[in-house]
Amino acid sequence: MWTIRDLPMNQRTMHFADRLYAAAKSRGNSLCVGLDPRWEQLPEAVRRRHPGNTLDAVARAFEEFCLRVLDIVAPLVPIVKPQSAFFESCGPAGMTALQRVLRRARELGLLTILDSKRNDIASTAAAYADAAFAGTRIDKESHPVWAADALTVNPYLGRDAVEPFLAAARKTQAGVFILVRTSNAGAGLFQDLVCDGKPLYQHVGEAVAAWTRENLGACGDGDVGAVVGATHPAELARLRTLLPDVPFLIPGYGAQGGTAADIAAGFRSDGTGAIVNSSRGITASFAPAEPAWEAAIDKATRDAIAQLRRDTPMGRL
Amino acid sequence: MWTIRDLPMNQRTMHFADRLYAAAKSRGNSLCVGLDPRWEQLPEAVRRRHPGNTLDAVARAFEEFCLRVLDIVAPLVPIVKPQSAFFESCGPAGMTALQRVLRRARELGLLTILDSKRNDIASTAAAYADAAFAGTRIDKESHPVWAADALTVNPYLGRDAVEPFLAAARKTQAGVFILVRTSNAGAGLFQDLVCDGKPLYQHVGEAVAAWTRENLGACGDGDVGAVVGATHPAELARLRTLLPDVPFLIPGYGAQGGTAADIAAGFRSDGTGAIVNSSRGITASFAPAEPAWEAAIDKATRDAIAQLRRDTPMGRL
Repeated sequence: MWTIRDLPMNQRTMHFADRLYAAAKSRGNSLCVGLDPRWEQLPEAVRRRHPGNTLDAVARAFEEFCLRVLDIVAPLVPIVKPQSAFFESCGPAGMTALQRVLRRARELGLLTILDSKRNDIASTAAAYADAAFAGTRIDKESHPVWAADALTVNPYLGRDAVEPFLAAARKTQAGVFILVRTSNAGAGLFQDLVCDGKPLYQHVGEAVAAWTRENLGACGDGDVGAVVGATHPAELARLRTLLPDVPFLIPGYGAQGGTAADIAAGFRSDGTGAIVNSSRGITASFAPAEPAWEAAIDKATRDAIAQLRRDTPMGRL
Repeated sequence: MWTIRDLPMNQRTMHFADRLYAAAKSRGNSLCVGLDPRWEQLPEAVRRRHPGNTLDAVARAFEEFCLRVLDIVAPLVPIVKPQSAFFESCGPAGMTALQRVLRRARELGLLTILDSKRNDIASTAAAYADAAFAGTRIDKESHPVWAADALTVNPYLGRDAVEPFLAAARKTQAGVFILVRTSNAGAGLFQDLVCDGKPLYQHVGEAVAAWTRENLGACGDGDVGAVVGATHPAELARLRTLLPDVPFLIPGYGAQGGTAADIAAGFRSDGTGAIVNSSRGITASFAPAEPAWEAAIDKATRDAIAQLRRDTPMGRL
């Protein structure tokens, strides 16, 4: 069986989808732990070690908490998804914390999806993409910034704006997850508008399917995935049928209301094809005053895996 | 006449659109200088002062360059637009540079649009929005991160995802610019899809018009603007007619190929209604070896203003 190690960027010789499925098979699940640290949800024990109510203190608390979460979940799950917004909200110190969280995840053998929903055009998109993957170029040398395995990207600007993300990802055998059908209640305002007989999200999904077929891995999936919310089971089922080669990243499980039954249709029958993200359901699975918060995270992770293995095709991994 | 000063966040008592138009009237133009620093385009004189080819050195060079640009353009233009991507591409040190650039712009009396095209849902969107405007809350106190006057936001996720940005902006009399029709050649892939008889970008534009009417300033414009590329003059003219209360931010002038004549239709006949951004046309208006690069920036700014005042209604400001 393939094993996932902390490969330096230039030794990433395996296709993103193959790395993803090898990691999922090795853990027997494709649960992704979302790292969305919020000050008011941190364990009080962690908060007390970072007093002063400054952004720098909060950033250090986020780092301590997330590193501990990584230690707990690394033996259990294949992949984690830090959410840029919460690190950015601490300013520069938050970005340092994010770098350290991503580095520790790699060291622990976890794959990383940097959830920052980036989007821009031309050389500006390339700046985001180089930072996410191969590193920022200075006089032809690349300097790693986030060194993530995958990045979430917003598709509104079109293929030429997505292109720099694909190009940068493909240099390091990384992946891109395109927002197709998001998990918020109002996602349909634009995403459900019907154009040429089908909703916008389906147009985006079919574009993603075409892009992913440009670079398929040995496992049959490509390196461009689709973000499809667990909160829209009908759309999820429809997209799974329409986009056979596309790995799905499914947010909205747990705290946002999506159940395991809701997301079953996001998998292929062999249990592949979907990464299910849970953030607060795991990292806020305890009251801040709870001293045994680490045990709560361990239990919530194991419970989510058990539930998903029981109620979705993930059990066949 | 109103004057624009560096108001602390909690003293921003004037509506964003009123601040914008007061600033434009005081300068006699609505040119926005885009701050998109690229290492290979920096003056060699600046690069030489930051040797070592590290991200930290590049971040310090970006800061030095942008601060000097601000000094040069502050007497000439009302507003500047730092591009997050280039600062983020230097890692944490780049975010420190971005904070200092935004602070200096405020000190010089310039309005600031943080161009980061952020988008997410619920409390995650709120984290980005608080960072952009009022500051990140820790135990009910707000800690400024970017303290920008406006932020660019991607609309694909729908109104409920835009809502946290509007709410945070309205707490500090700030503004939000929603991507409607972007300036890249492939913008139409999704934005031009026809739904219910009109293209997607028009649906987005009409939503922006409804959102901006929730909070109109004394000048008659609202606090939600539209990003509409200079490279699509027909769409620009159509949107100006359809969205009377919406301030436009028009990128794509100059280096991207949009001419002053192309963007004339983006203004109302009295010269209001449009902010025209130029980035490389000003900040890369010289060869890196040019010793008189500061004079080149001054001249490029004055030339752009003169051209826009001559060839668009901006001359009536």
